[in-house]
Amino acid sequence: MSDALAPVLSRIDSDLEGALERLFELLRIPSISTDPANKDDCLRAANLLVSHLASLGAEAELCPTPGHPMVMGKIGSGSPHLLFYGHYDVQPVDPLALWDHDPFEPFIGEQNGEKVIRARGASDDKGQLMTFVEACRAWINEHGELPCTITFFFEGEEESGSPSLIPFMEANREKLAADIALICDTSMVSPGVPSIASQLRGMLKEEFTLKGPAMDLHSGHYGGPALNPLREISKLVASFYDEDGRVTIDGFYDGVHEVAPEQLAQWENCGFDETEYLENAGLSVAHGEKAYSTLEQQWSRPTLEINGLWGGYQGPGTKTVIPAEAHCKITCRLVGDQDPDVLRKALRAHVEARLPVDATVEWDLDLEGNPAAVMNIARPEFEAARQALSDEWNREAVFAGMGGSIPIAGYFTTILGLDSMLIGFADDDDRIHSPNEKYGLNNFHKGIRSWARILDALSKA
Amino acid sequence: MSDALAPVLSRIDSDLEGALERLFELLRIPSISTDPANKDDCLRAANLLVSHLASLGAEAELCPTPGHPMVMGKIGSGSPHLLFYGHYDVQPVDPLALWDHDPFEPFIGEQNGEKVIRARGASDDKGQLMTFVEACRAWINEHGELPCTITFFFEGEEESGSPSLIPFMEANREKLAADIALICDTSMVSPGVPSIASQLRGMLKEEFTLKGPAMDLHSGHYGGPALNPLREISKLVASFYDEDGRVTIDGFYDGVHEVAPEQLAQWENCGFDETEYLENAGLSVAHGEKAYSTLEQQWSRPTLEINGLWGGYQGPGTKTVIPAEAHCKITCRLVGDQDPDVLRKALRAHVEARLPVDATVEWDLDLEGNPAAVMNIARPEFEAARQALSDEWNREAVFAGMGGSIPIAGYFTTILGLDSMLIGFADDDDRIHSPNEKYGLNNFHKGIRSWARILDALSKA
Repeated sequence: MSDALAPVLSRIDSDLEGALERLFELLRIPSISTDPANKDDCLRAANLLVSHLASLGAEAELCPTPGHPMVMGKIGSGSPHLLFYGHYDVQPVDPLALWDHDPFEPFIGEQNGEKVIRARGASDDKGQLMTFVEACRAWINEHGELPCTITFFFEGEEESGSPSLIPFMEANREKLAADIALICDTSMVSPGVPSIASQLRGMLKEEFTLKGPAMDLHSGHYGGPALNPLREISKLVASFYDEDGRVTIDGFYDGVHEVAPEQLAQWENCGFDETEYLENAGLSVAHGEKAYSTLEQQWSRPTLEINGLWGGYQGPGTKTVIPAEAHCKITCRLVGDQDPDVLRKALRAHVEARLPVDATVEWDLDLEGNPAAVMNIARPEFEAARQALSDEWNREAVFAGMGGSIPIAGYFTTILGLDSMLIGFADDDDRIHSPNEKYGLNNFHKGIRSWARILDALSKA
Repeated sequence: MSDALAPVLSRIDSDLEGALERLFELLRIPSISTDPANKDDCLRAANLLVSHLASLGAEAELCPTPGHPMVMGKIGSGSPHLLFYGHYDVQPVDPLALWDHDPFEPFIGEQNGEKVIRARGASDDKGQLMTFVEACRAWINEHGELPCTITFFFEGEEESGSPSLIPFMEANREKLAADIALICDTSMVSPGVPSIASQLRGMLKEEFTLKGPAMDLHSGHYGGPALNPLREISKLVASFYDEDGRVTIDGFYDGVHEVAPEQLAQWENCGFDETEYLENAGLSVAHGEKAYSTLEQQWSRPTLEINGLWGGYQGPGTKTVIPAEAHCKITCRLVGDQDPDVLRKALRAHVEARLPVDATVEWDLDLEGNPAAVMNIARPEFEAARQALSDEWNREAVFAGMGGSIPIAGYFTTILGLDSMLIGFADDDDRIHSPNEKYGLNNFHKGIRSWARILDALSKA
């Protein structure tokens, strides 16, 4: 530990109440990016972050986009120059009835004897984003300046496909220039085991409407002869998988590589508790491809998941209707060299080849996909950060695969030529994207301390 | 034509405006029986019918039930004693956005050059019910009394499973005693071809929730290992059918009989226009069991239809969720001697045998099913009514199969020992249960005239 670091850590400990107050103010804003009704809320969240960066002494600015604004700010001098990314938008909260409390009225609760921060966005990603901001605040308050240069880059469309991200980055290459990017939007491989991402899954999003009869039909007059879109969409969804849990779409596994034995061995010893992971979700076994371990299913295997499926009557009682159409929302998690554009074509071809007579399909999304990302863990910053994390958590930090998709890491590489280091402090049971999201108070506290240690370590690396 | 009939028919013609006004008043009441929010509307519709029967001179009464009330009234003397059944409740109107007008603000519109009555319930069943009431009104206004005895019996729960019907009928056997029952809730086999039902399909209703993970999960953290209820419910639905459109549930076809060749020959010449029937629904081919004709698929073959299917995120944009549960609403149309109780058990066993580990199923309905009904067309009243219909429509009336389910016909037999004669004037393109329901103005007018002729014919039979 350097002489500079110790007082920063003490200050973080003594100012934890203040850090929580600032986080709660951000959590109270329902910045749901996917719902147009919350557009003003997203703007409020962005403006609050601008004021935070300004209070650190940064040149901070709100950068408009066709969607929700970006927030940028630069502070400090000297080497290295770090680009820090986080997102201030959150997932929708439905079904609201399943929340035990108002999702946007944060409070400190308890879970399994541990204190937790409860609110939508507590873990994904407002709480994580603020761990870094608060580490910088403590350092500046203690020393008057940072030990290196930092560019902050906050997005408000991460939960809705980041439509403005690529054009913005392409138009602002110089402003975003740095030596390496830091991203705080991931979880730890197991509670208390600090983790740096070694690979991330990519993402392909699709949505389609299957149309059958010209109108809703009465199942007495037409039941039998009528095409039923609910039956047909079920057959389509079922056709995506074989009995071993593999996806049957032609070419789906092109570019998927087996994990090297040495990597697998490392994963087996990374502290991942399979039983706890499954139990947290109310599961007793892993339901993915039978030929692969739970960790491989989550980190190194691609998926095709149905996120929404609907059609016909959903109200109380019975309605003897054969509906005119049915709907399906899909996301694929991609790995290795799977090409999202090729897969999109293959998925659409699979569906279109199986349409019965009188049925048509409409593809309702036209979003960019993003391929998987493999991190450059040979860079010295990775080992320096790993050491800093190990010191803070008193436990060997690990390079771990990640099941989620953080498209920004790929864009940093392709657009800015930047490597990314993804370090996050979420737990797998944080219920991100679900009712009753939480973030461990200890994760928040030690997260701030971790970033202070990493700033210290990278400044000397 | 008897001397008594001609002036009644003239009076019907001259009072058509008045009959429409009385129908429109009933159509303006949103008596949706399945939705608790419309309970008072159902009561209003029932009270309006009580006042109509009283205005005919009937002893009319509102009969409370645990659900929506029954309406009863008796009028006339002498033989025969006819029991007339109709229902004053209507189907829900969603999706409301697909209506071209307010479903409960009736008006005379036009379709294919013909005048039509537009409103929810215009065809099913308020318009049909009122054809009989108006025939009686014309007869009484002309002659001061009816040529026979009539007991009116109107229900308000037909579109929501008729939960009060059986207990009410069992408790009121004497009040409901008659020689034969008349039911006006069916359609004509083809436009302009008057039809008397020779058989009706029965009905079984089921709804289930498939539960998987303990909560909604994030498809990054859990995609792969997690059980996805949307995938599993799709596989279940797909498993209900084989490639030839047959239902695969064990024993599903027990009690289903092939139609006799002479009956099939009659159906082939009954005026059913297959192309028009399919085109009305935007279809080019029949999609039911491949081994059977379109008419057999509709009239004499059982079905298992999905009426509603839903789970996960249905809002705008994407949500990378693996939902905790999925839902499915099912109705089966039954024929021959299929036993609804046996089939319910077989359906549930089929689903439960296919549940993957970690999945559970909850059955959300517990309604009585009703078997199919075969009419006693050898009774002389059937031929008398057929002659009367042929005279009115200037076209040979037919004994036709029917795809729909009118459970009341079965209950009249089992509880009251009554045969039923089902005569209706709906067209297949009336969009009953769909947006923009209509009833041909000519069907309404000639429907009233048809009942006057039938009253005349049965009184002399």
